[in-house]
Amino acid sequence: MSASRPIHLTRVDEWNDGSLRSFQDCLVAEEPLEIRVNDEPFTVTMRTPGHDLELATGLLFTEGVMKGASQAASLRYGSTRNIVEAGLELDGKDMNKLRRNLPATASCGICGKASIDSIRRQGIARPDSRLSLVAEVLCSFPGKLKSSQAVFGKTGGLHAAALFNEVGELAVVREDIGRHNAVDKVIGWALHERRIPLSDYAMMVSGRGGFEIVQKALAAGVPILASVSAPSSLAVQLAREFSMTLIGFLRGSRFVIYSAPSRVRSN
Amino acid sequence: MSASRPIHLTRVDEWNDGSLRSFQDCLVAEEPLEIRVNDEPFTVTMRTPGHDLELATGLLFTEGVMKGASQAASLRYGSTRNIVEAGLELDGKDMNKLRRNLPATASCGICGKASIDSIRRQGIARPDSRLSLVAEVLCSFPGKLKSSQAVFGKTGGLHAAALFNEVGELAVVREDIGRHNAVDKVIGWALHERRIPLSDYAMMVSGRGGFEIVQKALAAGVPILASVSAPSSLAVQLAREFSMTLIGFLRGSRFVIYSAPSRVRSN
Repeated sequence: MSASRPIHLTRVDEWNDGSLRSFQDCLVAEEPLEIRVNDEPFTVTMRTPGHDLELATGLLFTEGVMKGASQAASLRYGSTRNIVEAGLELDGKDMNKLRRNLPATASCGICGKASIDSIRRQGIARPDSRLSLVAEVLCSFPGKLKSSQAVFGKTGGLHAAALFNEVGELAVVREDIGRHNAVDKVIGWALHERRIPLSDYAMMVSGRGGFEIVQKALAAGVPILASVSAPSSLAVQLAREFSMTLIGFLRGSRFVIYSAPSRVRSN
Repeated sequence: MSASRPIHLTRVDEWNDGSLRSFQDCLVAEEPLEIRVNDEPFTVTMRTPGHDLELATGLLFTEGVMKGASQAASLRYGSTRNIVEAGLELDGKDMNKLRRNLPATASCGICGKASIDSIRRQGIARPDSRLSLVAEVLCSFPGKLKSSQAVFGKTGGLHAAALFNEVGELAVVREDIGRHNAVDKVIGWALHERRIPLSDYAMMVSGRGGFEIVQKALAAGVPILASVSAPSSLAVQLAREFSMTLIGFLRGSRFVIYSAPSRVRSN
């Protein structure tokens, strides 16, 4: 998968009301972009390739590192299209302080492949699990999730993450304005309850299945991750490398299987 | 606004197909949580209060800092409910390396008020603008945004940010898997085009209007920010402090005005 295209093509399986078909799907690309200032790493952001110089310009400007349009001209690509270099006068300001509310570097390297390799180096392995789910049980997750979201109903503004067992019983649901936080709350709950690794549970998230969500679920040993929305290219790549079952567009009686379809059965 | 409740109440204005009414709305709370390890700051995350110890546990575990359930018992609140302290054996590992893909601290302090004060210290001021928008023009934004999203149509997986002028003409639209990235791309475009401050433009975002999105828009001098979804408590507080017009739930012929309603007119 090339880093420079915003869309990747891949073969997926679609479950639709009892029948399964395979088709070529479009995935939104997700790749790390490293932003360097004066030859030093400044930050890394997971982004969709395209308009990368604008992205780096806007980020450096809104963080107060770049002062105005005259400095924007200094930005250019580095040794790859996943690196942008900026030459900026920092007026004696300490770069460490300037980036204090940003990640310094990403553990995930500066390309998709390096990102996945680094997950392996963290000691994260394939989920060791015999869990499989009946398609109809999977289809029941979104309704159960929605009816158990306490705060969402009142505010319309929250992400949720939940765990379900093999027969579709909800074990826990947590809400947060941040997608990652909702997942962290569920995994924190599981750790307190001594249920890690989560070999017997499927995780459902309300938002997208991005790279970092798959990474967190893998760290907790989750064999099946489902979301109501689209996964990214890198999330699919990561799930496939670790044989985690990744489901997207779980709505009504339909869903798409992006990885390890053998954990989904028709009855 | 207290830090310990997941919902805040506030008075807002709702525009619905030509008529305006005021009502008491529920906002999802957003507050920074500082996670400290062995008496040192580890990271800060913007989160919805509630299950904070689980959140810190899950984050430390999925980042590889906490090894298992036995360490989870060491977590407790610090001097406020926005601080969690963890005592962990790091086995000689360097904490700076462990948090390399997380922000070290947030510039925004450890409570909502400190977060807003720090924005002011960054030199960000009220948008200097005479822009006002007719309600019907505002209602045309989502349709225009959607029809101009090149990648979303193919993948269903992207956030978008856009700028519109007073008569509702689209100046620019950018897409990204990350909400912040889409906004940064738009602001980077504006900087390259020498249109900063964006006094004559309204910004529209496809996702939620969170604190950091409002902060970025303010840094670029945007007077009106609209989203299709719900803003957070802290986003509304920040917009009010800086007299930025904040619109949420912009769908069909309806929207909610959370701040500075005078920039919206009926004709």
